[in-house]
Amino acid sequence: MKVSLLGPEGTYTHQAASSYFANLEADFQSSIRDVFSSETEVKFVPVENSLGGGVSDTVELLKDGEHEVTAEVRLQIQHALISDEDSVEEIETVRSHPQALSQCKKLIEENGWEEEETGSTAAAVEELRENEAALASEIAAEINEKNILRTSVQDTDSNITRFFVLNGEPEPKKKTSLILEPGEDRPGLLHAMLSCFAGHQVNLAHIQSKPTKRKLGEYYFYVEADAAGEKLQDTIDCLETYAEVQNLGSFSVFGDEA
Amino acid sequence: MKVSLLGPEGTYTHQAASSYFANLEADFQSSIRDVFSSETEVKFVPVENSLGGGVSDTVELLKDGEHEVTAEVRLQIQHALISDEDSVEEIETVRSHPQALSQCKKLIEENGWEEEETGSTAAAVEELRENEAALASEIAAEINEKNILRTSVQDTDSNITRFFVLNGEPEPKKKTSLILEPGEDRPGLLHAMLSCFAGHQVNLAHIQSKPTKRKLGEYYFYVEADAAGEKLQDTIDCLETYAEVQNLGSFSVFGDEA
Repeated sequence: MKVSLLGPEGTYTHQAASSYFANLEADFQSSIRDVFSSETEVKFVPVENSLGGGVSDTVELLKDGEHEVTAEVRLQIQHALISDEDSVEEIETVRSHPQALSQCKKLIEENGWEEEETGSTAAAVEELRENEAALASEIAAEINEKNILRTSVQDTDSNITRFFVLNGEPEPKKKTSLILEPGEDRPGLLHAMLSCFAGHQVNLAHIQSKPTKRKLGEYYFYVEADAAGEKLQDTIDCLETYAEVQNLGSFSVFGDEA
Repeated sequence: MKVSLLGPEGTYTHQAASSYFANLEADFQSSIRDVFSSETEVKFVPVENSLGGGVSDTVELLKDGEHEVTAEVRLQIQHALISDEDSVEEIETVRSHPQALSQCKKLIEENGWEEEETGSTAAAVEELRENEAALASEIAAEINEKNILRTSVQDTDSNITRFFVLNGEPEPKKKTSLILEPGEDRPGLLHAMLSCFAGHQVNLAHIQSKPTKRKLGEYYFYVEADAAGEKLQDTIDCLETYAEVQNLGSFSVFGDEA
């Protein structure tokens, strides 16, 4: 299936997309904004805790756009140490995206390596020189035909990135993403809106306030509810008494610890 | 004053810190984690919508640490077009952090420039070659003695980044950052906690749910309240009947549109 996603080839976004789509034909774009405006209908975007491009852009573009969330895909970020060299002993400099470097501090400090920052983890692998290693996904090593010296070298194992599939195949629907835009703010407003979830016994899986950018101090809320379909309709009807409600789609969760 | 902040020299973090501290003596670190663990007592960290390093790291590290938020500083991100060349006509390639490139699409497309990604906006200025321009802060141009060909070239003007000063001079206290950790999740729990803000008529300026990473589906909440001191104490007492409450500090807001 042809899918638009953030490039370059070999990033964690690419790895996560490959795990969800059986026959991925990737249409790589250079920014999340470009993914949203690309002509390829099905899109794959990071929504939380990604390397270089996070929930902020994606939530804003979902709010603007005409796209439906059809699946959530989770990937545990595991950095591999990738090089043209054959052994860890030959490494003097390690290259990667600043966030990947900061997630592998223990390994870097133990070995006393120099650090060099790159724009993406995939770019680090493409530009490898003598006595250098990159921190990136295993798929990046395969694509560039480099050696994987060590796998899973990150300091902790708790780094899960979430992605959304937009306009994909229908799946069983268990969660729903909503934008709540209440207009003018007042103390207690969020509490009033959340009374709809509490009253109808629907669990909130995620909540985030975001400035509307129209007026200082005016906010909208991005929420994910653990419900979909008829079970959620009363909640949505209730929310509409407080705010403009935009339904971004209902979906299932796939992947690591899903 | 000696202040620890995310480097390199010439980033927007550097520019924002220079606007707040009268005599800034910058102790540049290579990651937000390193800023938190540096021996320099006063720290300056991005908390929302930064280029390369966002609220996620900072909130987690505030939760772990022993640091007190003493001020919020806002900066409107305005990218300058910086080069060794003397005119826009000579530019063929534009270099910057992927997010800065995506924020200046109009200019790049109008001119048909090639794009090259770098690890930070400041690095883009340091590595300039013939017929190239960088998108970065004006302070980066000054430091590296480059030409500013155009100022404020971003597509829209709504890109405000927020920073926190940690362990700084006391300021009048108007806002307070709190971590709410309720333990086991249940439907209506967030609504119950927010009843404390609604009941005591305190406005919530920001809210975000974050996974605890201890157990899947267990969340904590990072909130900012528009109150401090005695006015907030009843609310905190109320919150403590539902959750563990961590007070990260009370502060005023400085800078653009503050």
